[in-house]
Amino acid sequence: MRMIDIIEKKRDGKSLTKQEIDFFVSGYTNGDIKEYQVAALIMAIFFNGMTSRETTDLTLAMAYSGEVLDLSTLGKIIVDKHSTGGVGDKVSLILLPLVSSLGVPIAKMSGRGLGFTGGTVDKLESIPRYQTGVPVQQFIKNVQKVGISMISQTLNLAPADKKLYALRDSISCVESIPLIASSIMSKKIASGAQKIVLDVTVGKGAFMKDMEQAKKLADTMIQIGKLSNRETVCVLTNMNEPLGYSVGNTLEVIEATECLKGNMPEDVKQVVLELGSYMIKLANKGENLEENKIKMLENIKNGKALAKFMELIENQGGDISYIQNLEKFPKAKYIEPIYATKSGCVQEIDSKEIGKLAGMLGAGRDKKEDKIDYEVGIVLNKKVGDEVEENEVLAYIHANNEDKMQYALQKIKEVIVISDQFVEKEKAILGFCGG
Amino acid sequence: MRMIDIIEKKRDGKSLTKQEIDFFVSGYTNGDIKEYQVAALIMAIFFNGMTSRETTDLTLAMAYSGEVLDLSTLGKIIVDKHSTGGVGDKVSLILLPLVSSLGVPIAKMSGRGLGFTGGTVDKLESIPRYQTGVPVQQFIKNVQKVGISMISQTLNLAPADKKLYALRDSISCVESIPLIASSIMSKKIASGAQKIVLDVTVGKGAFMKDMEQAKKLADTMIQIGKLSNRETVCVLTNMNEPLGYSVGNTLEVIEATECLKGNMPEDVKQVVLELGSYMIKLANKGENLEENKIKMLENIKNGKALAKFMELIENQGGDISYIQNLEKFPKAKYIEPIYATKSGCVQEIDSKEIGKLAGMLGAGRDKKEDKIDYEVGIVLNKKVGDEVEENEVLAYIHANNEDKMQYALQKIKEVIVISDQFVEKEKAILGFCGG
Repeated sequence: MRMIDIIEKKRDGKSLTKQEIDFFVSGYTNGDIKEYQVAALIMAIFFNGMTSRETTDLTLAMAYSGEVLDLSTLGKIIVDKHSTGGVGDKVSLILLPLVSSLGVPIAKMSGRGLGFTGGTVDKLESIPRYQTGVPVQQFIKNVQKVGISMISQTLNLAPADKKLYALRDSISCVESIPLIASSIMSKKIASGAQKIVLDVTVGKGAFMKDMEQAKKLADTMIQIGKLSNRETVCVLTNMNEPLGYSVGNTLEVIEATECLKGNMPEDVKQVVLELGSYMIKLANKGENLEENKIKMLENIKNGKALAKFMELIENQGGDISYIQNLEKFPKAKYIEPIYATKSGCVQEIDSKEIGKLAGMLGAGRDKKEDKIDYEVGIVLNKKVGDEVEENEVLAYIHANNEDKMQYALQKIKEVIVISDQFVEKEKAILGFCGG
Repeated sequence: MRMIDIIEKKRDGKSLTKQEIDFFVSGYTNGDIKEYQVAALIMAIFFNGMTSRETTDLTLAMAYSGEVLDLSTLGKIIVDKHSTGGVGDKVSLILLPLVSSLGVPIAKMSGRGLGFTGGTVDKLESIPRYQTGVPVQQFIKNVQKVGISMISQTLNLAPADKKLYALRDSISCVESIPLIASSIMSKKIASGAQKIVLDVTVGKGAFMKDMEQAKKLADTMIQIGKLSNRETVCVLTNMNEPLGYSVGNTLEVIEATECLKGNMPEDVKQVVLELGSYMIKLANKGENLEENKIKMLENIKNGKALAKFMELIENQGGDISYIQNLEKFPKAKYIEPIYATKSGCVQEIDSKEIGKLAGMLGAGRDKKEDKIDYEVGIVLNKKVGDEVEENEVLAYIHANNEDKMQYALQKIKEVIVISDQFVEKEKAILGFCGG
């Protein structure tokens, strides 16, 4: 088998066989196949696409290119949850303890965030002494003991995907539906997921800018799920404005804790309930989605969800006194409000721009080596559709550097747009795709 | 300027600026730009093409990526001739001394052949003591002295093209009209051509398999010629069957000498006269194409063309006694006829297959380092459209190895197809494109 023939085949719009896909993925992973040949193939895939079967073969080849977590010893259906990314997305911090409190086992291995703000692992690490880097045996023990563990990727999961993603990034081939879908699904399969609930975010701060593209991505991932025998459902959610009010690491842990206490912003609540109702269903813990939502709301009201969150943290070595007394969390040096310059209705809060500002303040990282500043970020005081009076506070900037603070104060004025007209609130849930 | 943005632009079907093309060609040549990024760009060009302006900018960037031969000191219009390649193509050996004998200055620097049979330089080197590797000053002196010099590429001409061609070859991106056209034209411009006559071969043994593709290539090269101020004309010629009767190195020198003595096969004659009439016109030595052809035929008849060929050889250090007595040339160890198994009319002699057989016998090289066996090859006794009797000789195999001889004898039976029906002769000249 020759790589040059594989490139030619895809270039001419033909489908690659499983053998050909395995050949190039394993050859690329072990260095036998040249990077420039893979680059050419990737560009040909960008133009000519891949069938569901090819995309599934690529997914599985990448998933099995390194270690694959075996969660079968748990003897339970492990449902994974994944989001295609957003700004202010603290859903995992709320949702996973919540469904765990209803008997859904959670064994969640997350990557660190690259981009505007930290990932779930970074947010968890903003809780003092929380250990995300535990060995796999301990991870599985933790799930057995308290029904939930959330850690960072300690294994060498899907190395082919890592290599391929970095290559795509350097050759302008990120925006390809089969390549995005197989990248996401390969990591889920490698981390032991048996069923998968995907939060496909859509809008300004998301990877998918419009519904058409988002639906295509969702359908592709559902097909991969079917063909690889990992039942998958997708909920399409809005990412035009940030989710909830807080954007940052500590700031989002605080907001998530408040949510688990019952103080949930409307958009966060809708997304948590929607995703959770499917997680419970896929885990065979409740067929009826509406009943699942009611059970979730009950466990928030009766404190069981918050208790599970603290059990998780304690079990990972974290200090729950911070959760018990949120005032204990270290605060940024500067906390400055930004005021409305006129009365009206909030028309737009571009989540991409808010994310970029939070990243500039230090809440995210550009490179793997960068350190995250847990304390900084942005806390909105208004959401799209809210009425606002002149001089009312629109948001607070949390910064540890005065120059950055000044820049953020200036910049955020352009990002939060106020209209003289009535503006409708954004819809949180935009659609559903699934088996 | 970032390579990644250039890739994205071409991926999205936009035109690259001259600055962007210069940036990537010079960055690639000096190693600043990664091979995998160039591979991705090349594949995007394969899909989205290039405008005439972009193709010209690419041509000039590659032409000026290394040394450029300056022939202006000759004070004359230098017309270059180039063929896109074929089997049995000894045209340059005949045509260039012929037009030189009519006062058209010839300063020809050729590459070595890669593929079925040797290039013009290899064929010249099969003449004992002919020096193809002379320094540029000597080359120019030779042109001044006898009006013609034919040597190998001693300069580092168009290194970007060399690198890019090798890359295209390894990523299945050879068959792209703008990339083929810019590759050919960059080498011509770097080797000092002021006007260019191109022999675009079409058919089984050629790079262009059909007229549509050949015309596109011709038009693209003519456009590059216009935009780079190098007047260019293209003659489209037939390469379904080998040109003339002989395929090999010494064998083709012998046939070329016979042609210069007036014994020209019909197809060779038509191609030589057609290309020559344009060379004379472009060199301002005769406006009327038909008159130019008559002058050429005259100089063959009166021996001036053959005399010029010998003058060329002598001036390059070659031993003309071999040309004066063709029997002196060393012969292959085995010369075996192949006989017709039935009577009929020759329907097909696939030039690609004949070329492959000649290459297998040792007449060509796969890698730059390979040594050529000058003596071996194939001499046809019949051409397409010729009548043939059972047991009549169809061709002779010239080999230096008995196994290879046996293989060739077997194989050639499938290549020379005899029909019971009347078959028309192939047309040598298929078309013309030019200013």
